[in-house]
Amino acid sequence: MKLSQGVEWGLHCTALVAQAPDGIAVSRRLLSEHYGLPEAYLAKHLQALVRAGVLTATPGPRGGFRLARPDEQITALEILEAIEGTAPAFLCQEIRQRGTGAVPPEDCTRPCGVSVVMAKADEAWRGSLASVTVADLVALVPSHTRKRNRARLTGEPTGDR
Amino acid sequence: MKLSQGVEWGLHCTALVAQAPDGIAVSRRLLSEHYGLPEAYLAKHLQALVRAGVLTATPGPRGGFRLARPDEQITALEILEAIEGTAPAFLCQEIRQRGTGAVPPEDCTRPCGVSVVMAKADEAWRGSLASVTVADLVALVPSHTRKRNRARLTGEPTGDR
Ligand code: FES
Ligand code: FES
Repeated sequence: MKLSQGVEWGLHCTALVAQAPDGIAVSRRLLSEHYGLPEAYLAKHLQALVRAGVLTATPGPRGGFRLARPDEQITALEILEAIEGTAPAFLCQEIRQRGTGAVPPEDCTRPCGVSVVMAKADEAWRGSLASVTVADLVALVPSHTRKRNRARLTGEPTGDR
Repeated sequence: MKLSQGVEWGLHCTALVAQAPDGIAVSRRLLSEHYGLPEAYLAKHLQALVRAGVLTATPGPRGGFRLARPDEQITALEILEAIEGTAPAFLCQEIRQRGTGAVPPEDCTRPCGVSVVMAKADEAWRGSLASVTVADLVALVPSHTRKRNRARLTGEPTGDR
């Protein structure tokens, strides 16, 4: 079981966009250069984030991405689901209805115990991600990194290197 | 993100083995026929469950699989990890250390916030599965199905169909 690399990109890029001062849009180029990501491939994930209502995109030379809502109202789960979709990782193939032990269809109107247990685990996973906001992610960025990011996002000289 | 089909097989097969009366080993053939699963492919998963200490295998014509421990001491997580491994679904590729925004290695001795958040979600998922035992899975099987399974596992006529 593997999540796509886009999850790491989407979470980091959204947290970086959230660090831009009010009114400043972050270009796709800046995002791709900041993290050394292939721009064309990143574009697909950014579009998914726009479709999911996490980011807004404005066109033009000063255009780019902004948060669609305040950072404390966007969850890590929204970003995850924008990139990975909402389908649970466990897919029941109804093996209880196959073979010599087949349970008749009329006894299978509800999911089986295994399926319920796996669904609960999925809920626990998503619940954990739903409890974290973009504001939390930004707060976890070390303050000197945040300061440097802010300078880069506004085009100021960063002072280091 | 997808879990392998083997997870459904492993959980159901272990729960079925748990329904066998004391002293009765369940053959690979019975398991594969019961759920209509390809025997050779199922064999790999059963071996993984033996290696993980979930099942024991005894050879010979009356041989087969038994639980390695009492059903209330084996968790759904053990079965899941026997089949899928213990690697977290999220793989951090350290994008914070790449590109123009690269954080210097000396500031990256600890996982970043995104990585911590994803690790916590993984813990929540595994924790949920660790809280469920094989005894719980058996208890979730409807009683008439359990009765029929027991008859099949002992070779008695099942009465139905
Ligand atoms: S039949 Fe699919 S998980 Fe039980
Ligand atoms: S650098 Fe990999 S998740 Fe942050």
